[in-house]
Amino acid sequence: MLVAFQGEHGAYSESAVYSYFGSSVEVLPCKTFREVFDKVERKEADYGVVPVENSLVGSVVETYDLFLEYDLKVRGEVIIKVSHCLITNVETDIDSVEVVYSHPQALAQCRRFLESFGRTLIPTYDTAGSVKMMKEKRLLNAAAIASEKAAEIYGMKIVARDIADNPNNYTRFFVLGEEDHPPTGNDKTSIIFSVPHKPGSLYNALAEFAKRDINLTKIESRPTRKKLWEFNFYLDFEGHRKERKFMEAIEALKSKAYFVKILGSYPKASNKI
Amino acid sequence: MLVAFQGEHGAYSESAVYSYFGSSVEVLPCKTFREVFDKVERKEADYGVVPVENSLVGSVVETYDLFLEYDLKVRGEVIIKVSHCLITNVETDIDSVEVVYSHPQALAQCRRFLESFGRTLIPTYDTAGSVKMMKEKRLLNAAAIASEKAAEIYGMKIVARDIADNPNNYTRFFVLGEEDHPPTGNDKTSIIFSVPHKPGSLYNALAEFAKRDINLTKIESRPTRKKLWEFNFYLDFEGHRKERKFMEAIEALKSKAYFVKILGSYPKASNKI
Repeated sequence: MLVAFQGEHGAYSESAVYSYFGSSVEVLPCKTFREVFDKVERKEADYGVVPVENSLVGSVVETYDLFLEYDLKVRGEVIIKVSHCLITNVETDIDSVEVVYSHPQALAQCRRFLESFGRTLIPTYDTAGSVKMMKEKRLLNAAAIASEKAAEIYGMKIVARDIADNPNNYTRFFVLGEEDHPPTGNDKTSIIFSVPHKPGSLYNALAEFAKRDINLTKIESRPTRKKLWEFNFYLDFEGHRKERKFMEAIEALKSKAYFVKILGSYPKASNKI
Repeated sequence: MLVAFQGEHGAYSESAVYSYFGSSVEVLPCKTFREVFDKVERKEADYGVVPVENSLVGSVVETYDLFLEYDLKVRGEVIIKVSHCLITNVETDIDSVEVVYSHPQALAQCRRFLESFGRTLIPTYDTAGSVKMMKEKRLLNAAAIASEKAAEIYGMKIVARDIADNPNNYTRFFVLGEEDHPPTGNDKTSIIFSVPHKPGSLYNALAEFAKRDINLTKIESRPTRKKLWEFNFYLDFEGHRKERKFMEAIEALKSKAYFVKILGSYPKASNKI
């Protein structure tokens, strides 16, 4: 089984793949989220894993947009803790470290640690990619912020662990495939829909869920790119689209909405973002 | 009047400041969003301008989190079109350009242009900062993607305009100050609230707006960082918190919510994200 993800080996997305599929799965690193969708659509990969939401930075709009564009389904969710480490080459003496490389978001998330560490920060494209680059160039005056896994893969040294200001840093990933998941009795469903922009229209749409006692776990309005004053809503609820109550709610929603796109139903992750 | 913003001179945030306050205002560049809030809180700046939402990438969670932490108010909104240009030094011959610098998000937004341009991409921390760096180092084999304004400020050449794949690239900014804005008859209000996590609780909360015919312009659920299974909602509606109908809706919401934080009421921008 081959699973596509975006990033270099050691990326948090790759950890999500192993967390969901187990360590014996084969992985296919891709440059962009779109490439992940393409690989699955063309059957060059069995599944893909893409980030959909992070507890500190919010929804990944690009992922939602790609779901609107492609005809692929969400068949799983996986939530992993993002735990940043300070990483150097094995031979590096910590006192000789002058610069710290990482993705701007990772640098920002480790602000307090870095303030007391007091080195020059160099923003880069990628957390795991920074570790790889330090290794390849044999940089001895540098450190990078990335995952434990990245240190392991490139044979590097972990100088400090859990260096982020806020430990509640979780990323939720969607597992995508050609079909969604059969009902398990403990499922969630993700949809995107749009309703007319007038008072009460969202409220009326949500009535279909409230009157059936359906628990929402996410709602978000996003302006559509195509037209001013038009919104898409990202909505997750507890339940499977193939079970009667939830099927009825979706059918009722369709009669009130411009459109409803079902991204898929899938077993709930055991943890939460 | 002094207005703080995050970024280098030429940043899109700086354009938002001038768009809102006019070109004679004085600006104070800050390194981080937090610094913008600090400057206003300590009265070292009269106002601050921070991004809250982008049409392509969604809400800026960091900004919302800072509003929860600080006791400052939203007193205005301003929406600007993000229009990326390809920029070089004046002496640069386009054929000698080998690399393109910019923030990863800007590079991603200009994917199609860059694919046909076919140069090496170098992700950096900042759009305007890339132009400044190219100028300072007199790089003649490089281009950067940034705003027209950035080219102007650093005396650089615009080689191509509007190079983004999707022209609907708008960023919405909040103007923050010690007080919000008095009613004008054409206002919006932004709040953050939290309700118990059970079926129908969001629906019941929204009833207070629907039954008063109040138009919502944004809703978004965000997991709180503090506790699992707890959400904050970001909500915008049309109306001013000091007008009776809207005041009543907020009071009624308070009786159903864990907490309601009013970010402020302010005149609606004439355009939309």
